[in-house]
Amino acid sequence: MEINTVTTTTNYEASTITIKGILSLLMQSIDDNNDKKVISLGIGDPTVYTCFRPPRVAEEAVIDAIQSEKFNGYAPTAGLLQTRRAIAEYLSRDLPYKLSSDDVFITSGCTQAIDVSLAMLARPCGNILLPRPGFPIYQLCASFRHLEVRYYDLLPEKGWEVDLDSVESLADQNTVALVIINPGNPCGNVYAYHHLEKIAETAKKLRTVVIADEVYGHLVFGDNPFIPMGVFGSIVPVLTLGSLAKRWIVPGWRLGWFVTSDPCGMFREPKVVERIKKYFDILGGPATFIQASVPRILEQTQEVFFEKTIDMLRNSANICCNEIEKIPCIVCPHKPDGSMALMVRLNLSLLEDISDDLDFCFKLAKEESVILLPGTAVGLKDWLRITFAADPSLLEEALRRVRSFSQRHARN
Amino acid sequence: MEINTVTTTTNYEASTITIKGILSLLMQSIDDNNDKKVISLGIGDPTVYTCFRPPRVAEEAVIDAIQSEKFNGYAPTAGLLQTRRAIAEYLSRDLPYKLSSDDVFITSGCTQAIDVSLAMLARPCGNILLPRPGFPIYQLCASFRHLEVRYYDLLPEKGWEVDLDSVESLADQNTVALVIINPGNPCGNVYAYHHLEKIAETAKKLRTVVIADEVYGHLVFGDNPFIPMGVFGSIVPVLTLGSLAKRWIVPGWRLGWFVTSDPCGMFREPKVVERIKKYFDILGGPATFIQASVPRILEQTQEVFFEKTIDMLRNSANICCNEIEKIPCIVCPHKPDGSMALMVRLNLSLLEDISDDLDFCFKLAKEESVILLPGTAVGLKDWLRITFAADPSLLEEALRRVRSFSQRHARN
Repeated sequence: MEINTVTTTTNYEASTITIKGILSLLMQSIDDNNDKKVISLGIGDPTVYTCFRPPRVAEEAVIDAIQSEKFNGYAPTAGLLQTRRAIAEYLSRDLPYKLSSDDVFITSGCTQAIDVSLAMLARPCGNILLPRPGFPIYQLCASFRHLEVRYYDLLPEKGWEVDLDSVESLADQNTVALVIINPGNPCGNVYAYHHLEKIAETAKKLRTVVIADEVYGHLVFGDNPFIPMGVFGSIVPVLTLGSLAKRWIVPGWRLGWFVTSDPCGMFREPKVVERIKKYFDILGGPATFIQASVPRILEQTQEVFFEKTIDMLRNSANICCNEIEKIPCIVCPHKPDGSMALMVRLNLSLLEDISDDLDFCFKLAKEESVILLPGTAVGLKDWLRITFAADPSLLEEALRRVRSFSQRHARN
Repeated sequence: MEINTVTTTTNYEASTITIKGILSLLMQSIDDNNDKKVISLGIGDPTVYTCFRPPRVAEEAVIDAIQSEKFNGYAPTAGLLQTRRAIAEYLSRDLPYKLSSDDVFITSGCTQAIDVSLAMLARPCGNILLPRPGFPIYQLCASFRHLEVRYYDLLPEKGWEVDLDSVESLADQNTVALVIINPGNPCGNVYAYHHLEKIAETAKKLRTVVIADEVYGHLVFGDNPFIPMGVFGSIVPVLTLGSLAKRWIVPGWRLGWFVTSDPCGMFREPKVVERIKKYFDILGGPATFIQASVPRILEQTQEVFFEKTIDMLRNSANICCNEIEKIPCIVCPHKPDGSMALMVRLNLSLLEDISDDLDFCFKLAKEESVILLPGTAVGLKDWLRITFAADPSLLEEALRRVRSFSQRHARN
């Protein structure tokens, strides 16, 4: 009569760190006697700021779907056909081939799409290559699905490109996938066509597949356009993960997708398809009426809505980088080109009584009521992740407080 | 470069059968030249019939939650606090102790609650005791979570009570849980207090926990009231699974719960709680605005709504049983007392050219455009599952066609 409290011995220790876990501890350490307004730049949820709102048409589409009373029943577990078809068409716009509705499976947010890909690829002694810094849910998921995790580095001095040498040295015959996150979380990188092509070639050489987390797809404002990894699907099979969450600013709607961007058809082998479908039979999946609203949302969201979001993100990223430049102990090695976050390095030698990134963030929370995510939570000790998808005035205020905190703790 | 296409060798073969898989094959075998309207009594989704609609307040609550624009962001992965609290209060009404919000985790429908319980209890060499007939998702889930499945019998002649002798003979030190479904799917049974107490005592003796699937909770219309298994939580720890799906007639909303009905606190051990919470971090969970609507739905749904549903189900069950009595080759051993389905035995010796339950259902679909679920799909060969949560006139029409089909195929 017991619940199994261990996952795999190798991964469990590290996986005890989650972003939400640390943020919640940071929140608790805020000094209630401090009358400063709490500003969190810790999590990628822009809905807390009134400047980031979903498009009106999205809300209307969901309300219409409820009121029609046609979508209170079960959807097929892989998703409503019209929804799968609409997402296939949406993603195909940026690909040199057409996805079919059979390639698309609807998930409860991108989180569930991550679980599906890891659960489907897991096999005895399998390992998966994850970026460092990265997104901790991959590691947590791998530990539950009995996959060994191996970290390859992202190179800050090269715009957070994948260290392909480190990828090659880590991979072996048991490597089930190489995960990339583009546009990048936590680094705000956007990969150029040729780098993505090299990633595809490397994965091909290593005889593994690529899991492309594109939850921040299209949210780019730098020099590189957003190129989906599926463009290279004929070089290497790609599992594309995405959702409405970021581009439509509805993370709480839990509408994501798991897509086989695989024109060569490896994932279309009947046994593979059957196994994926069966896995979807045990998942809850998103609400039928939300699924039903997707075709209209994809079709009718105005370009001006997307442009406005991009402008806001570009503006916020600029504010963030400008303010950071005024803080000597914090260095941003690469200005973000997309997504909603960036990574900065702490120069601890300039600080008097701060031992590491965790110490920095806990003292900052206590003294200034500002929440930043310690880099440790995403795999880089003595770095910080700053989410810049925030109201500009609050962003400025938060970073001014970081500056005065840093001055107060500066080594003389 | 391969997807693992096997789950566990022991379970995979059997788990290739799913209710939706068989129903879809049956649908395909319907003769398009037949001008009879297709009537499916195959799946437990009453929303396809206009007589079964959700309460107005439920739709209003969801629409208000969307329009408030307060619930577009992420919820805590275990669920919104107010939702967990409201469900704890709702379930506590029928218990001799109070559940707290910490006992309640919000899932994407009852399906995800099933997965959570099996994934949390799984351990190397573990086995789980499932009812036969039962609900195939348990078996499928067990195969993905590497749990061996052992079936105990439900006894038709005893109102589908659990065969406790068979439970005792199947259990060993690796038995992680005993699953009961009450009110019963597929049998329509509702267990008396004393039988539930005996189940609890047996589980205690076997040093295992009880998973109580109460997705049909309160949908009872026979002599036995609905008693939640959690009533016996001080005898044995109970994991209670449920959802809004059936009682509120919103299966597509994907709002379920996984609840530790465990006043002795075995599931409140910090390591166990931490592991459950981490598992929720990798699940998608239901939409935040649907979660936000739950407190109002639980509070404001009128008793008259529930009474109307119960009256419709009682009426439909009566119609179903009356019509079945007119069909010699079909025998209902126990009139349903709850839920939305019943099991009937086929007497193949009275039929001329029908080899088994599958043959019966496929020929019936082809000739009469009526879909019934072959008992094989729920573990009982040569039985049928009939969902009676249907429009009365269609139910009568469907069963009249079953009768004429049976007469046509009768042995002389």
